[in-house]
Amino acid sequence: MRASVCRQLLASVAGPRRPTRAALARSLFSFSDSTKAPASVPLTHELFGLKRADHAQVTADDIKRLAALVGGRVETDPQDLLQYNTDWLRSLRGSSPCVVFPTTTEEVSAVLRYCHERRLAVCPQGANTSLVGGSIPVFDEIIVSTSRMSDVIEVDGDGGTLTCGAGCSLTQLEKAAESKHLYFPVDLNIREAQLGGIVAADMAGPRTARYGNLHGNVLGLEVVLPDGTILNSMSTMRKDNTGFDLKQVFVGSEGSLGIITKVAMACPPMPKHINVAMVYTDSFDKVLQVMRMTKEHLGELVSACEFMDNEAVMTVKKKYLSVWGVPSKPYYVLIETAGQCDTHDEEKLRRLFNALKDKQLIMDGQIGPLNYDDPTFVERLWNINGRILAALSRAGNVYHYDVSLPHSKQYPLVEKLRTELGDDIRAVASFGHLLDGNLHLALLSSAFSPRAADTLDRLITEYVTAAGGAVSAELGCGFKSRNLGASCKDKAEMKLMRQMKAMLDPHGIMNPYKVFPDVM
Amino acid sequence: MRASVCRQLLASVAGPRRPTRAALARSLFSFSDSTKAPASVPLTHELFGLKRADHAQVTADDIKRLAALVGGRVETDPQDLLQYNTDWLRSLRGSSPCVVFPTTTEEVSAVLRYCHERRLAVCPQGANTSLVGGSIPVFDEIIVSTSRMSDVIEVDGDGGTLTCGAGCSLTQLEKAAESKHLYFPVDLNIREAQLGGIVAADMAGPRTARYGNLHGNVLGLEVVLPDGTILNSMSTMRKDNTGFDLKQVFVGSEGSLGIITKVAMACPPMPKHINVAMVYTDSFDKVLQVMRMTKEHLGELVSACEFMDNEAVMTVKKKYLSVWGVPSKPYYVLIETAGQCDTHDEEKLRRLFNALKDKQLIMDGQIGPLNYDDPTFVERLWNINGRILAALSRAGNVYHYDVSLPHSKQYPLVEKLRTELGDDIRAVASFGHLLDGNLHLALLSSAFSPRAADTLDRLITEYVTAAGGAVSAELGCGFKSRNLGASCKDKAEMKLMRQMKAMLDPHGIMNPYKVFPDVM
Repeated sequence: MRASVCRQLLASVAGPRRPTRAALARSLFSFSDSTKAPASVPLTHELFGLKRADHAQVTADDIKRLAALVGGRVETDPQDLLQYNTDWLRSLRGSSPCVVFPTTTEEVSAVLRYCHERRLAVCPQGANTSLVGGSIPVFDEIIVSTSRMSDVIEVDGDGGTLTCGAGCSLTQLEKAAESKHLYFPVDLNIREAQLGGIVAADMAGPRTARYGNLHGNVLGLEVVLPDGTILNSMSTMRKDNTGFDLKQVFVGSEGSLGIITKVAMACPPMPKHINVAMVYTDSFDKVLQVMRMTKEHLGELVSACEFMDNEAVMTVKKKYLSVWGVPSKPYYVLIETAGQCDTHDEEKLRRLFNALKDKQLIMDGQIGPLNYDDPTFVERLWNINGRILAALSRAGNVYHYDVSLPHSKQYPLVEKLRTELGDDIRAVASFGHLLDGNLHLALLSSAFSPRAADTLDRLITEYVTAAGGAVSAELGCGFKSRNLGASCKDKAEMKLMRQMKAMLDPHGIMNPYKVFPDVM
Repeated sequence: MRASVCRQLLASVAGPRRPTRAALARSLFSFSDSTKAPASVPLTHELFGLKRADHAQVTADDIKRLAALVGGRVETDPQDLLQYNTDWLRSLRGSSPCVVFPTTTEEVSAVLRYCHERRLAVCPQGANTSLVGGSIPVFDEIIVSTSRMSDVIEVDGDGGTLTCGAGCSLTQLEKAAESKHLYFPVDLNIREAQLGGIVAADMAGPRTARYGNLHGNVLGLEVVLPDGTILNSMSTMRKDNTGFDLKQVFVGSEGSLGIITKVAMACPPMPKHINVAMVYTDSFDKVLQVMRMTKEHLGELVSACEFMDNEAVMTVKKKYLSVWGVPSKPYYVLIETAGQCDTHDEEKLRRLFNALKDKQLIMDGQIGPLNYDDPTFVERLWNINGRILAALSRAGNVYHYDVSLPHSKQYPLVEKLRTELGDDIRAVASFGHLLDGNLHLALLSSAFSPRAADTLDRLITEYVTAAGGAVSAELGCGFKSRNLGASCKDKAEMKLMRQMKAMLDPHGIMNPYKVFPDVM
């Protein structure tokens, strides 16, 4: 179980609502960007001692032919290739000799048909922001970038739908949706992430319970299959019950069954008012009671309910002195509303706050932006949440896990880790999206140790599997968690996954060494 | 295109909010139930001149062996078999010699393994409430009923999830969810419908825009594959990103890829207050403006926004004299809110109502239940909506279509049909779920005519396909729309559908003559 070797540097995927997006994206990107020079990142296959599969070797003639298929838009300069070969966290590096930049679906089709016939391995790539190494090659896979397919094709205000090319970034899509008073229902910190990759990895975020997941919100997909076939499953209809819903197969397939070229998404109306409260409490049991009362009082109005423990918040306080002076408390819950009516929304949040106090479920807290007297209030609160992993990584080496667990099993895991792990682990910080049952664990040590990583992998996988949880909640498996994901799958599921792969990609050219576990 | 021959008797699938469910289920069921004695319904294969596929013939020994696999729970009495061989609308009839009633997943597995090895065709059945003939045999398929697998396994109030056997009815699930203050997010008129069938057919309803579709809300499935393999994709986690999301393949596969035996669903908190308004307006353009202002004013609070035209509502008035005396107006919109705070909800709905009047978008309307002075107000309004098809069917023969269309293309279709169709069609009534773009069309004639049905099929399919819509929105294809559905699919999609079918069901035993078009 050496998958965790690269989990040492990871950023939170819990994205803030609009007021803070820009600020957070910057802070996280600079954190990642400054970590290492791409050239100094170890080669993935050397680090993991992997054996190259028997795909064909890429020749100069291949590159010439591929270039001809995409109007010459290829990158082959070794120095310029580095950014495409190295992951966003600067923890993995591949050695692709070539990135191709198709601008149309037909070009993607021609490229895949060529690679399929030649048995050349392919790594699809968007903005290359995967946190699990899903978007970079492991060996010499040809990188097919969809980043130049970035047209917003249509925004339908009445239908509440947005149609676009796979290369559109969240920043771009959010702006396009807003032009028709729609909310783009994907919240991730990394705003340059592109929709093709987001859908391929089935990414989520803190507001999934409110706005729904990608399986519910993706209305149409255009996908180029590994043999070059264009599968047109585009639709902007919210209800289409004609035949199997084939597009679902590609949502979460992480580039291993084809390349997504177009997406149509359902978008709800844009909420007009955002309010947040941060409350403090002294036990995880009370955290869960706060969550229950939040759901009861706020109902359809709540857009996020985020848990953080003392270790998480105090590390942010230590490492980012400019952050709002939050007091040291055992547990924190950040509650957000997104609604249409400022007075109603504030009244509901205030009533909840008072009810929590009356029932002695919270020690105190902050609520806002009442009367909007402090325009940075919402942003400052979300900044605490968004900087946890960045802050921890400034304090040492971080092992990060993104799991789903039944609520009652969440904090016992944190406590178990604190008790059972040796001195190697200096601290265990936790935070999560309560409404989704999604818990993030960050374990701090002075340096990375493969042995500690293996122990953690085993401990956490065993616990999560026994509790009926999921060892990957919102990041996908990609390269880093390829072995973890399989460990909690049913045998029949793994068999069916392999059958689907063999059916759609008989030569196994698409994104090899990802999603599926190493053959032992 | 003779698929429409059975579309003459159809009930609305637009379900009302709780206050009216029981009343509606009764009215619709008696409507259907009283139409014909099952024995008088024509045999489907004779009516459509279909040729039996080359599955093995069911022998007495087969029935004996199958009975042994399910503890003797089989039905073979010809008279008692009628209800399982005849559809809910009394429009189709099969001739299965045997229904088996497994009570465990292992029994379903043993039955399918036997049928797979013997090449015996199988028709999965739940409550047999399909409106498109998806749940009854066409020839002598063995009916495998999951209706005795009706345990509610777990309701998790904190996680907002419900886990149950495939045979649980909506009535049962609603009650189970309510016990933990959860809302079961599937609304259909036919409350005895069972979840296994609902998920297999990917049914929707009027509140999909608010609560999400089944692809988003189904968290886990247990499915028995055609060869008897048990696929355990159960999870109660709202986020599970470990490998391909295989369960999605079975949502909407209409029993042709396996039998769903268990389901886990995400359920939102139960709203506390329901309010409705019925407004009248004089153009479809204003109907759309009403929808826009509804979304803007009510945002997250709106749970349904239903359009009905004069023809639809006046037919209900004529045929159900007991119905509330609604005035004759060109267009009606029924707006529903579902929220946590009675005063806020009513204030928002009142403000919307006044704004619509101020802008002269509506002529007048009714709003309630302000102060709850009339407890039957909500029920009476929904009853109008829910009885449209039943009322029309009392007036003559009804051709019913359930399509998705971009909003601007919806009413032009109704007008086109009114203009272009001959005297055969006495009236065209329309109503729909505005938030989903889902339009129901009901065309009234004195008697059923295969020629008129063919003309309608062609006209509507051409129009809907050209407009980028879907010819089946929320009912599935089943038997009745098997040819319509395929007509708007991409060639590559049909190929992939057939590949999936061949991969999972190599002997083609599962629910034959459904979903896929007839081979011409």
